[in-house]
Amino acid sequence: MRVYNFSAGPSMLPLEVLEEAQREFLDFAGTGMSVCEISHRDKAFAPIVEEAESNLRELMNIPQEYCVLFVQGGASQQFAAVPLNLMHTGKADYIVTGNFAKKAWQEGKIYGEARVIASSEDKTYTYIPDVDKIAYNDDADYVHITSNNTIFGTRYAKFPETKAPLVCDMSSEILSREVDVTKFGVIYAGAQKNLAPAGVTIVIARRDLIENPLPICPTMLKWKTQADNGSLYNTPPCFAIYMANLVLRHLKKQGGVKAINEINVYKAGLLYDFIDSSSFYTNNVVKEYRSIMNVPFVTPSKELDEKFVKEAKAVGLVTLKGHRLVGGMRASIYNAMPVEGVKKLVEFMKKFELENA
Amino acid sequence: MRVYNFSAGPSMLPLEVLEEAQREFLDFAGTGMSVCEISHRDKAFAPIVEEAESNLRELMNIPQEYCVLFVQGGASQQFAAVPLNLMHTGKADYIVTGNFAKKAWQEGKIYGEARVIASSEDKTYTYIPDVDKIAYNDDADYVHITSNNTIFGTRYAKFPETKAPLVCDMSSEILSREVDVTKFGVIYAGAQKNLAPAGVTIVIARRDLIENPLPICPTMLKWKTQADNGSLYNTPPCFAIYMANLVLRHLKKQGGVKAINEINVYKAGLLYDFIDSSSFYTNNVVKEYRSIMNVPFVTPSKELDEKFVKEAKAVGLVTLKGHRLVGGMRASIYNAMPVEGVKKLVEFMKKFELENA
Repeated sequence: MRVYNFSAGPSMLPLEVLEEAQREFLDFAGTGMSVCEISHRDKAFAPIVEEAESNLRELMNIPQEYCVLFVQGGASQQFAAVPLNLMHTGKADYIVTGNFAKKAWQEGKIYGEARVIASSEDKTYTYIPDVDKIAYNDDADYVHITSNNTIFGTRYAKFPETKAPLVCDMSSEILSREVDVTKFGVIYAGAQKNLAPAGVTIVIARRDLIENPLPICPTMLKWKTQADNGSLYNTPPCFAIYMANLVLRHLKKQGGVKAINEINVYKAGLLYDFIDSSSFYTNNVVKEYRSIMNVPFVTPSKELDEKFVKEAKAVGLVTLKGHRLVGGMRASIYNAMPVEGVKKLVEFMKKFELENA
Repeated sequence: MRVYNFSAGPSMLPLEVLEEAQREFLDFAGTGMSVCEISHRDKAFAPIVEEAESNLRELMNIPQEYCVLFVQGGASQQFAAVPLNLMHTGKADYIVTGNFAKKAWQEGKIYGEARVIASSEDKTYTYIPDVDKIAYNDDADYVHITSNNTIFGTRYAKFPETKAPLVCDMSSEILSREVDVTKFGVIYAGAQKNLAPAGVTIVIARRDLIENPLPICPTMLKWKTQADNGSLYNTPPCFAIYMANLVLRHLKKQGGVKAINEINVYKAGLLYDFIDSSSFYTNNVVKEYRSIMNVPFVTPSKELDEKFVKEAKAVGLVTLKGHRLVGGMRASIYNAMPVEGVKKLVEFMKKFELENA
């Protein structure tokens, strides 16, 4: 039985995509080879990377002044790549709105003066600082933000307007809502939430920003190296890129980012509306900043939380346990989570409340 | 029709492994999820990494003093990780026996005094320098070698005995022949030749060597970070690790490294013996150093080389074109290439010679 998987990542992929990958797993496009066996230098592979890039450009409306890279190492590796490519004067600003935002800042400190200019740590990251009231430094090489905070279930309702290039970790919400790419210097995202299996990371970078990586930057972390070689400087994560392309095609068929965003807003609404109407479940994120991808919530007690996770699993609603930093439950409802899955979850929540309130 | 794929990498995987992965692609181990959708923190995933490590330890006889890591970025990323983890006094020795050995050295130069202590570039990398006659420096933090040179078709018949830790890029021959791991400080290998689809890289490092990475080392490139977190510091390339584990299981069933080495020696023998008996085909590598994984060869002319590649493809012997630095043909015959594939190739070579000599 296929389950509804509420994992924060790696997470659900569209069933149609999985079925297609399974069907052609032993023979990709009549080559007599699995897509896992094809050289990245082969004529059969080049179109995959090209199409993936072109689909991403179309879906996110990415102008040619930006390069689109498929790299390895996850967002965590980009935490280092950001300062190693951009920190020319040795100063950068960070807005710390969660665990990964903090890790990005800590990595920045290895390479220069990485300053926290705003943080929501004071209230356990349950809100996003007002971006219009932050004192941005004039001398920053960049301002770093994390647009959606997977663990705490918050997201920027509005992005900062900064003089320095805005660098954004968009891992847990890329392709889930429309963004104006031209407002950003760099966007990066691990693919394992909305885009592909784990193993590929997207970097969208304004070309004029990537010309002068620091001399100590490893060749593989230089965006310029990857841009000059069409993401084929060395062997890329071929299978993950192939899967990303299938997901991107699928998203286009669904009507693109605008259409999926409407569905995402509807799905998140079902959950938040029910939680807010209940006196049994609580989500303590400031409403304006609630994520539409990750919905953390708790019952009145830890014992009931545990019982909830266990009983939900028994009916095919899996991986609902919250992150250890927050506890309780977390329903990650990325693009690939069907509306039906969220409805089933709400039904279960109602039933559980009736039985345990 | 399934073809015989002589690609240098990504390359053939055992058919049995591909079929198993295809079978359970939509439902891994009764979880109701694809292995591509399972969180790396899930109880269903941990056993995969653990078993992969344990299988690799068993197959290569890796003692507990060594950590075994599954990381991202390919061998090219390790070219930077090696100095960033080991170059404490800023000096290291490199033996340059091919294109990738040279790239490793060039990356080393970013971080300190990386010295070429021996090279076979004078004869287009057609041999390996005599390791007993090299003047190793007493002050080197490590000595770096590339055990098998994919492009030029050479390999070390015997490994250097060095005072400094021996660091070895074993990408294109790992698990193809028995090696004494204890003779090495660090072994690393991109998996896309003998082990798995592209996207995962193996690092086997003596634990006492990884304690003090350079302060500028990105967290994700610190072997210590990965070792302390069982390769789960951040989201790993789950699918590639899963596939690696299936390949490792398969290799155990085949009798392990000793048994596969005998087959590899036999396969390479079929090709080299035929080439040496022919006046039409040439392989100009010094016999002692011939690789049993990558066999480059040429016909009497470039025109015939092209014709060979084209006609071979038409009968299901694909990706035989040599690397642009060498030209001609290259038959990569990794662990997963069946004996039958090599026999078919030799038959085709005979026929082609008769028709074109």
